[in-house]
Amino acid sequence: MEGKEEDVKLGANKYAERQPIGTSAQTDKDYKEPPPAPLFEPGELTSWSFYRAGIAEFMATFLFLYITILTVMGVSRAPNKCASVGIQGIAWAFGGMIFALVYCTAGISGGHINPAVTFGLFLARKLSLTRAVFYMVMQCLGAIFGAGVVKGFQKSQYENLGGGANFVKHGYTKGDGLGAEIVGTFVLVYTVFSATDAKRSARDSHVPILAPLPIGFAVFLVHLATIPITGTGINPARSLGAAIIYDQDHAWDDHWIFWVGPFIGATLAALYHQIVIRAIPFKSRA
Amino acid sequence: MEGKEEDVKLGANKYAERQPIGTSAQTDKDYKEPPPAPLFEPGELTSWSFYRAGIAEFMATFLFLYITILTVMGVSRAPNKCASVGIQGIAWAFGGMIFALVYCTAGISGGHINPAVTFGLFLARKLSLTRAVFYMVMQCLGAIFGAGVVKGFQKSQYENLGGGANFVKHGYTKGDGLGAEIVGTFVLVYTVFSATDAKRSARDSHVPILAPLPIGFAVFLVHLATIPITGTGINPARSLGAAIIYDQDHAWDDHWIFWVGPFIGATLAALYHQIVIRAIPFKSRA
Amino acid sequence: MEGKEEDVKLGANKYAERQPIGTSAQTDKDYKEPPPAPLFEPGELTSWSFYRAGIAEFMATFLFLYITILTVMGVSRAPNKCASVGIQGIAWAFGGMIFALVYCTAGISGGHINPAVTFGLFLARKLSLTRAVFYMVMQCLGAIFGAGVVKGFQKSQYENLGGGANFVKHGYTKGDGLGAEIVGTFVLVYTVFSATDAKRSARDSHVPILAPLPIGFAVFLVHLATIPITGTGINPARSLGAAIIYDQDHAWDDHWIFWVGPFIGATLAALYHQIVIRAIPFKSRA
Amino acid sequence: MEGKEEDVKLGANKYAERQPIGTSAQTDKDYKEPPPAPLFEPGELTSWSFYRAGIAEFMATFLFLYITILTVMGVSRAPNKCASVGIQGIAWAFGGMIFALVYCTAGISGGHINPAVTFGLFLARKLSLTRAVFYMVMQCLGAIFGAGVVKGFQKSQYENLGGGANFVKHGYTKGDGLGAEIVGTFVLVYTVFSATDAKRSARDSHVPILAPLPIGFAVFLVHLATIPITGTGINPARSLGAAIIYDQDHAWDDHWIFWVGPFIGATLAALYHQIVIRAIPFKSRA
Repeated sequence: MEGKEEDVKLGANKYAERQPIGTSAQTDKDYKEPPPAPLFEPGELTSWSFYRAGIAEFMATFLFLYITILTVMGVSRAPNKCASVGIQGIAWAFGGMIFALVYCTAGISGGHINPAVTFGLFLARKLSLTRAVFYMVMQCLGAIFGAGVVKGFQKSQYENLGGGANFVKHGYTKGDGLGAEIVGTFVLVYTVFSATDAKRSARDSHVPILAPLPIGFAVFLVHLATIPITGTGINPARSLGAAIIYDQDHAWDDHWIFWVGPFIGATLAALYHQIVIRAIPFKSRA
Repeated sequence: MEGKEEDVKLGANKYAERQPIGTSAQTDKDYKEPPPAPLFEPGELTSWSFYRAGIAEFMATFLFLYITILTVMGVSRAPNKCASVGIQGIAWAFGGMIFALVYCTAGISGGHINPAVTFGLFLARKLSLTRAVFYMVMQCLGAIFGAGVVKGFQKSQYENLGGGANFVKHGYTKGDGLGAEIVGTFVLVYTVFSATDAKRSARDSHVPILAPLPIGFAVFLVHLATIPITGTGINPARSLGAAIIYDQDHAWDDHWIFWVGPFIGATLAALYHQIVIRAIPFKSRA
Repeated sequence: MEGKEEDVKLGANKYAERQPIGTSAQTDKDYKEPPPAPLFEPGELTSWSFYRAGIAEFMATFLFLYITILTVMGVSRAPNKCASVGIQGIAWAFGGMIFALVYCTAGISGGHINPAVTFGLFLARKLSLTRAVFYMVMQCLGAIFGAGVVKGFQKSQYENLGGGANFVKHGYTKGDGLGAEIVGTFVLVYTVFSATDAKRSARDSHVPILAPLPIGFAVFLVHLATIPITGTGINPARSLGAAIIYDQDHAWDDHWIFWVGPFIGATLAALYHQIVIRAIPFKSRA
Repeated sequence: MEGKEEDVKLGANKYAERQPIGTSAQTDKDYKEPPPAPLFEPGELTSWSFYRAGIAEFMATFLFLYITILTVMGVSRAPNKCASVGIQGIAWAFGGMIFALVYCTAGISGGHINPAVTFGLFLARKLSLTRAVFYMVMQCLGAIFGAGVVKGFQKSQYENLGGGANFVKHGYTKGDGLGAEIVGTFVLVYTVFSATDAKRSARDSHVPILAPLPIGFAVFLVHLATIPITGTGINPARSLGAAIIYDQDHAWDDHWIFWVGPFIGATLAALYHQIVIRAIPFKSRA
């Protein structure tokens, strides 16, 4: 019980895990680090839950793109921004959808809805390579369909108004865009790791309830900050879906940024969490 | 206890339910699917809790229309949108009221406040036909009264400014409007099913606390996306109440969309949840 | 445990409490209605916790008025609303402060911060008359000081820009304003009763955690809807504090509305909850 | 169990702790006040968790400044505020980041992210002097780096547009600015104390889950109110980071306000909580 309390005493310092530096950093007793997922796990290919998880990722990414790109289009076509939900409304659409969808699919697929998140969790060995690739494919397919349905509503306007595609905005360099994507994805994947940490779950099993909320907020916040720079990707499936349906040169020119940036950001977040926060490399084998 | 944790490890894959595809998909032990509600259950007609639930639905829908239509009118009559809470404020009014009202009435009536939600849950056999019809009638009555009170505040303006009635906006076809209603209601009812899943409750009884929050957010998000298309119905009682009080031809012409669309969307969400997510048809009889 | 689940199955009907109508409506076993508070309880006057609760109500109402009226002034003095947090920002300030302050003071005083809430809870016999009067006095004093500090920042502007005082806006009758206050306060006090119901606590002890959130949202939503009509009172202490510091005739002329309206709304909410939802008058004596 | 319920009966009065005034105010049995932290605790200097906590504070403050100042710059450079996330979006960026970051780092460092919070908690003897100083240094370093990265994106604009630095806005005196910082920080640190109270944790161990939410909201609300006055500091690290990177005289002239104000506010909140709410000085020794 004491372990449970520890997490939630914000503002209190934590003395419980004091060990001399340089030796095994933590010998936690009240939680169990799950073993790393195997790279290939043939068994999962014959289970219904594996395919169901993929379908859930497809559906979630489909709905994500549908709602968010439709919101973007609604703001773009308004005669003035004040007569629309505004740029802030776009940020709410992205963050709010992630909140609701992570809540809805966490129990089915883990609720990634984003290849960068899948990639970061794969690096931390939370899921197999097979599953990671399957998820990413389903996410991209879902995103393409979602953006496609939005184009179906308003074909000509979709092309004129940018189709919610990500590209580096006027006044910024490609380096700026890449940097914004890296740090933005870092914020998201860092929140995902923090919110779903096995240790945190062990100490206070109530905390994870809220996990979808900070994750959704992280997406919202990154959009507040970087919509003026790139329109905010931090999700290669979202960027790919919009780019394929929009399909214009200036979106494709920058498209690599929205894969390289998020994957670098996710890698850094995985490293930060595993090495600094969880000190896994320094732990003695259990 | 291990079952409890499973749900909240976002990002982790779930191996627990691995069975060969095509056979009985799940043999969950740690929760019990409630038996389907009977179509007619004469006993409930003599219980006070049945009528109380109907009154609670009436009151909730009354307050829902009152607050939301009043917000719509406030935005419409402002000299410019910036001097009002804006379109985003309208979306908050709809989503926020659903959050608060589901929270308040979930323990009394289940907190539907929407015939499409009642219909979806009826299809999943969560309530009897008698109860479903009674709820829908009470919801529609509540909505008519709620919109009526708003008209009472500002009669002439109510007529001039559209009265918050749903219709397909200029630049969109009726098909666009129907599609927007179908997918929008799907998002809502899919969230309702996900948030109230019996399996989820069993695995982590803490999760449902938050259920009203993602449900309210779903309503908010659909409004962000589809207010420019139809004003957003996804709730036939809300559309009917506004249409009856507004009572002008162009609202009535499109009115069928706001019944057919939500009912199709709710049906699809019920099918998706029961077949794909819960795999109920493939289960061996318990 | 089954009782616990019942509350959170949104969308499920509740069969548990079926009794023939007209007889004792409910014989709940898994919770205990607390006995009505006595009108006068001399003991509490000699306890520190009584005075501490009053101080907490003073402090909370002080901070409530300070933040909210400062936000109102910031919006009023902006050259155009777009260069401010806007009317929606005002609604967030009121609702958000109630969320945070109820969270902070619920454990000390019950977190009323509003004479209408105190009055409604007094009618339901949740606190003694002595305590109710003491709370209301402290709330009004806190509100006066809070508004006074805001005036201290910007004396001349405060007078020119309305000082956040409530009055019926141009284009509405006093009857409209009274009606808006009645229904608005009903929404708030109805949410307070629903969120803090003894029965709900018994069934699912996790639910009350969220109680400050729907209560804060209720305040936010009523502001979205009725700022254009009266500036939204639904809190006589807030209206009194602003009126005393602003001190101009047109605010005083309407001031009775912001006491009579909230008290009627709170009374109706108390009656609705006690009679319809809890059916207390129909219960057999325990 | 009864103790657990007590906290959440909003609106109920609390009779449990009645003692005659003037004697030992409370003799609570169901929680244990943690002993005051020692001023110097040599042991912690050799523990990895101490340095990890400092790194977490650095990283959190870095991300906090990065996202928030980038949002401020995005709003500043927009041709009109309606084409940006607006002032309200800035308030969301500050409050939302604090919510997400406190959630993520509470289990590692306590989640201060603000020297004023660290100072307040130090006064209440929740952490050692060594740790407090270490945290403050790391927070300031993080803030400087965070603001620096934003400047890297848009060098010339950063200087022209104010760089998110805090200073007293035109039309207000330095005294106004100081007062706004004092009360604003009081609101924040008062919320931190209320949300993390040991007594509250004991009574209802579920409540602290939500702690990051009211804390984040407090930051959001203070920004809504005082952005027009000072841009809102209430966090000396945030003010220092922006000032150093912006580095212009008019920001440095007022800079003392953003240290003195928050530290006074934090002191008052610590005194209020320890003396009025917890009555620690009047307690008999355990």
